[in-house]
Amino acid sequence: MPETHAARRTALRSLIRESGLDALLVTDLLNIRYLTGFTGSNAALLVHAEAEDRTLFCTDGRYTTQSEVQVPDLQRVLDRASAAALARHAAANAADYGRTGFESQHVSVEQYETTRKIAEGIELRRAPNLVERLRLVKDQAEIEALRMACAAADRALSGLIEHGDLRVGRTEREVARALENRMLDHGSSGASFESIVAAGPNSAIPHHRPTDRPLAKGDFVKLDFGAIIDGYHSDMTRTLVLGEPADWQRELYELVHRAQAAGLAAVLPGAEVSAVDKAAREVIERAGHGERFSHGLGHGVGLQVHEAPSLATTGVGTLSAGMAVTVEPGVYLAGRGGVRIEDTLIVRDGTGEVLTLSTKELVVV
Amino acid sequence: MPETHAARRTALRSLIRESGLDALLVTDLLNIRYLTGFTGSNAALLVHAEAEDRTLFCTDGRYTTQSEVQVPDLQRVLDRASAAALARHAAANAADYGRTGFESQHVSVEQYETTRKIAEGIELRRAPNLVERLRLVKDQAEIEALRMACAAADRALSGLIEHGDLRVGRTEREVARALENRMLDHGSSGASFESIVAAGPNSAIPHHRPTDRPLAKGDFVKLDFGAIIDGYHSDMTRTLVLGEPADWQRELYELVHRAQAAGLAAVLPGAEVSAVDKAAREVIERAGHGERFSHGLGHGVGLQVHEAPSLATTGVGTLSAGMAVTVEPGVYLAGRGGVRIEDTLIVRDGTGEVLTLSTKELVVV
Repeated sequence: MPETHAARRTALRSLIRESGLDALLVTDLLNIRYLTGFTGSNAALLVHAEAEDRTLFCTDGRYTTQSEVQVPDLQRVLDRASAAALARHAAANAADYGRTGFESQHVSVEQYETTRKIAEGIELRRAPNLVERLRLVKDQAEIEALRMACAAADRALSGLIEHGDLRVGRTEREVARALENRMLDHGSSGASFESIVAAGPNSAIPHHRPTDRPLAKGDFVKLDFGAIIDGYHSDMTRTLVLGEPADWQRELYELVHRAQAAGLAAVLPGAEVSAVDKAAREVIERAGHGERFSHGLGHGVGLQVHEAPSLATTGVGTLSAGMAVTVEPGVYLAGRGGVRIEDTLIVRDGTGEVLTLSTKELVVV
Repeated sequence: MPETHAARRTALRSLIRESGLDALLVTDLLNIRYLTGFTGSNAALLVHAEAEDRTLFCTDGRYTTQSEVQVPDLQRVLDRASAAALARHAAANAADYGRTGFESQHVSVEQYETTRKIAEGIELRRAPNLVERLRLVKDQAEIEALRMACAAADRALSGLIEHGDLRVGRTEREVARALENRMLDHGSSGASFESIVAAGPNSAIPHHRPTDRPLAKGDFVKLDFGAIIDGYHSDMTRTLVLGEPADWQRELYELVHRAQAAGLAAVLPGAEVSAVDKAAREVIERAGHGERFSHGLGHGVGLQVHEAPSLATTGVGTLSAGMAVTVEPGVYLAGRGGVRIEDTLIVRDGTGEVLTLSTKELVVV
């Protein structure tokens, strides 16, 4: 997909020009992957505001072959100190790179001091989050990767249930392993994050780590997990019941289910992120459980499992078509159990496109 | 182990005083884990140069219970913006914290700008790598964790071989999964890094990622992998042969084996890190393969799988008793195959204590 990466660089060039810069020195590896496709562990990229042929990619000798394959369309420099090499190039060509921005949200104070000395003849200017601004709205290639990552997680969950891996006596840890192995079977390169499998009272702990507690009859089992395809993360939560649910379990589930539907319905281009959070939160507050929904409603997802925007009470900004976000309300009754239901979806005109397709009806295993 | 963490903070206080500081604002999560035992995802720590009772720990409400258990011995503040909260505390108590250092090797330029404004009344000073200097030399608790992590990897490898998981027809990817699952069986919380399983010509690629290539008769199979116990990483490489080895394979293996033994023998308190690299490298150079040993000899290992010191040609500094390092020479014959042999060991007076105990004789599977 060299065209995809070239298109992203073209979009970045507009932002660089708008910022009054001649160039941007990109050093964050995820941002470099986004702009070039390179997946190695050492690289830097100097993107010129005007010209692709003054844009330079740098990695080291370990990645000679890999970078030829992944980054066929950019001038390449080989140097172990990749950021320093490109800063030196910029300083030696001050007419072209006189005002060069750097990723001040990633570059440490020590790295900055080193780079500043190398680039003494030019102005190094703080330019945070330019690439992150682009990454907010996903292009077609990114949405396809997210779709595949969500499908791998969906398939893993249905396989887990169908093959009886989710049953009384298995421990949370065993279930988490089985789930992660199934995601790998479906093409995931790893787990998006440490999978949460929380049974019984543990389901009331929002970010529980799987233990050796065996699943028991009547347990809520909360599973929060995701797959990674082509570097893109899925994120999904489902809560099931082992055996016939009690009335309080049905009621709690129904409440969270309604709140999640309200959250999904509020995901629209132009919506304030805090209003999306509020749409789901109000359902839970009206039922008297506001204090038991102790986290934000959701977050952006992409090359990172948690990225902008933040759908939270304190969140700022509005949604745009093409953003990928989660909607994940939960209510946690300490000592008894909790329910969280989470989807990953793409913001679309009309209604969002939910990518995590496992049923949200209460599943009784 | 509250005493262990208290002892580490006492050692840090000496470094803070030597640096002419009143306090250090620690924001790197691994450094916080090292100093307090806290394993959550949001925290900051303000260590006072003189007094434990002016040392403050901050995390957010999600970690109230966890931090009470893990950090019972420090004053606690709950605030989502943990670093900002402690910077504010320091600024409000300028008599105690007038000259406060920060971890400038971790703090981004943007974070620094934010903190600087909050702490306007006091001097914020760059103080890189103070905790990292302590982390270079492992204490008893750390060595025990490394020992367990190395044992989990050893057991996984012997199980893999004994149960016939390493055989003609299995793919590199399948072997990597089997190995990682076995490490989990032996208590590992995850893989130290993406396991390398490289068979046949792929074994000549130093950092090969496992593919769907099936293992074939006569292949070198290079396995580079590690387990994590209590946050500590092991790192080990073994290279085996499937079926009777050819003469060139025996010769290549024998060469790398000798180089690795020379490297191990050079690991002594007081040794220059570059001299340790040289001791192994000379063996390979004398055999005419110097250019085919294309990476450094080893690296420190602990809470990170790669940490200081770097045992490399360009490395600077000397070893001390109690450091944990790897020794991992390799020779790679492009298109044919390669051998790497790697141990994790503790620097000791006399000879180092090797923690990875799998045999280094040529194993024929």
